[in-house]
Amino acid sequence: MNKPLTFEVKQRSGQTAARLGRIRTLHGEIDTPAFMPVGTQATVKTLTPEEVRSTGAQIILSNTYHLYLRPGHELVRGQGGLHRFMHWDGPILTDSGGFQVFSLAPLRKITEEGATFKSYLDGSTHTLTPEKVMEIENALGADIIMAFDECTPYPCEHDYARSSMERTTRWAERCQAAHLRSDEQSLFGIVQGSTYPDLRREHARRITALDLPGYGIGGLSVGEPKPVMYEILEETVPLLPQDRPRYLMGVGSPDALIEGALRGVDMFDCVLPTRIARHGQAFTSLGKVVIRNAEYGQDPGPLDPACDCYTCRNYSRAYLRHLFKAEEILGLRLVSLHNLRYLGRLMAELRQAIAAGTELAFRESFYAVWGSEDRGRRV
Amino acid sequence: MNKPLTFEVKQRSGQTAARLGRIRTLHGEIDTPAFMPVGTQATVKTLTPEEVRSTGAQIILSNTYHLYLRPGHELVRGQGGLHRFMHWDGPILTDSGGFQVFSLAPLRKITEEGATFKSYLDGSTHTLTPEKVMEIENALGADIIMAFDECTPYPCEHDYARSSMERTTRWAERCQAAHLRSDEQSLFGIVQGSTYPDLRREHARRITALDLPGYGIGGLSVGEPKPVMYEILEETVPLLPQDRPRYLMGVGSPDALIEGALRGVDMFDCVLPTRIARHGQAFTSLGKVVIRNAEYGQDPGPLDPACDCYTCRNYSRAYLRHLFKAEEILGLRLVSLHNLRYLGRLMAELRQAIAAGTELAFRESFYAVWGSEDRGRRV
Repeated sequence: MNKPLTFEVKQRSGQTAARLGRIRTLHGEIDTPAFMPVGTQATVKTLTPEEVRSTGAQIILSNTYHLYLRPGHELVRGQGGLHRFMHWDGPILTDSGGFQVFSLAPLRKITEEGATFKSYLDGSTHTLTPEKVMEIENALGADIIMAFDECTPYPCEHDYARSSMERTTRWAERCQAAHLRSDEQSLFGIVQGSTYPDLRREHARRITALDLPGYGIGGLSVGEPKPVMYEILEETVPLLPQDRPRYLMGVGSPDALIEGALRGVDMFDCVLPTRIARHGQAFTSLGKVVIRNAEYGQDPGPLDPACDCYTCRNYSRAYLRHLFKAEEILGLRLVSLHNLRYLGRLMAELRQAIAAGTELAFRESFYAVWGSEDRGRRV
Repeated sequence: MNKPLTFEVKQRSGQTAARLGRIRTLHGEIDTPAFMPVGTQATVKTLTPEEVRSTGAQIILSNTYHLYLRPGHELVRGQGGLHRFMHWDGPILTDSGGFQVFSLAPLRKITEEGATFKSYLDGSTHTLTPEKVMEIENALGADIIMAFDECTPYPCEHDYARSSMERTTRWAERCQAAHLRSDEQSLFGIVQGSTYPDLRREHARRITALDLPGYGIGGLSVGEPKPVMYEILEETVPLLPQDRPRYLMGVGSPDALIEGALRGVDMFDCVLPTRIARHGQAFTSLGKVVIRNAEYGQDPGPLDPACDCYTCRNYSRAYLRHLFKAEEILGLRLVSLHNLRYLGRLMAELRQAIAAGTELAFRESFYAVWGSEDRGRRV
């Protein structure tokens, strides 16, 4: 049986844990470290797939929890799977719904069997189990599917974090057993353990013992200070196998992408770039720009003078501000596109820096613009 | 002085009042009969200019009233004018604000001098006079600018319609005198007269006496039955000069575009195609489709099997319905694009039919799909 995913580490940094890699899936390749735009409801909000691709994105993430509730995984399966349904023919990763169940769903109840919760749409009661999540993710048909896990909140008692982590291990084993399309879809495990180094180390050993094609690092970016996240990465990543992709879940701020990559992370995802875009906040080479600010009212220059995206090539800050003031949808589109392009360029430049062995200098030049209050201890 | 607009009638129908024409402006040509998408706030809602152009649109309309209030005409002038501000390098027409003042603005007061009203944005008081409207439209810099008029409601007493019409004539004369960029922008007059044939005939004579480069027909599509609108067109159009474009303001339903063109109208505009798109309603070759309807839930086919637009080439009705149910902006974009492409194709096919002398058969084939309850008397 051919593997539906291969991962090649092309180059390792001599100075940091950073590495350059390439993931090959049945729907295309991904150069790592990579940022994955999020298409929660089978659409990266406001954008077409062609626009998402134009930002440099090679893989997108979509959400099992949302698609299960609406339009339903069987409907998506009946429409030929998620790629065809949403008109994205590149690689897709689906999360497992674990994070959403534990962060979004009211009245949830967790047992060894699974998690019961009420739908945010109609209040109906649903139970997700490892087996059910595999059924859903198999129906959606993404290239990479995440195991069902419990994402612990921050802060979290050590005792609870341990018992939750142990259950997540058992759930991962059940996912592995229930996954019926391993010739087409690659199941990634998720390392939990909250902010406790001992639990992280133990869980990394337990989950990697399952010999899965890749590993997520979950339960971070849930409210803990960034230095804590970076420290946990330093404890966890070295215990993950060198020859498998490592995916830091839910992280997408520019500084954390750099810090994560320098600690050996290969993949990231976050709604941040598109969410803040819809509030008129842009990542730029000059730092963050809040386009509604009066100072941009008559600014004829582009959102980011260093950017090559459609927005920056064709529109002024004055016009973008007008669109936001006038509540015009085109504004949401243009800044969403720009923010994804910013991250697409950031990751491309970061990969170039890793290739050149200059990733530490790259980080310094980034902080020279963006500031560095909470960068954590130096890698 | 070169004329900033020329109009060539390329062919006249032998069977109806329809004609094929071409308008040439400093920003490009327009094949007529033409539909103009509306970009109220300097953006055709949800779409980029490139997307608007891809629908076959050669000219767009923008609204003086809205742009005067936000972001302000002086700001637009300072940004290089409306074309550059909104990144549309083709022809633009700006309306005069007359319709908006009389339909949208609360607490308006009309005098011989002009119209005083409160801003819908902040309640501030503003007065638009013919001279002020010319100042605004000169600052915006559209290729075609409409004279400031009073748009009477439906129904309207004959006495009021007459006195309003006479004032509109005096305002048009004042606009003509105040228009300072006639080497770059072409001022169109507007024929009013409510639904009274005698007033329409009289006003057509009065306004055309100003020898303007084109004429709008205003005060229609304001609530009167379509047969009444068609009858008024039949009274009015023959009195307009053959060698000037005729623009039926605010009309954009497919049937009325055909009926208007067959009565000799060259230009149309309306928010209808983009507004109903944002409510999930699509014009199609099979009639109107309401994409939220349950019947489309698992429909793998395109929105309109006869359409060549990006939406119809790449997405299923099932996916479009999902986007609307999930309140995703991409759905608004995709149906807006389709509806404009539907009208773009409708106008192109109508022009072909006029060229071939088959426009009556074209109308019949349209009504065979769409029904014809209120088509008015036969032309």
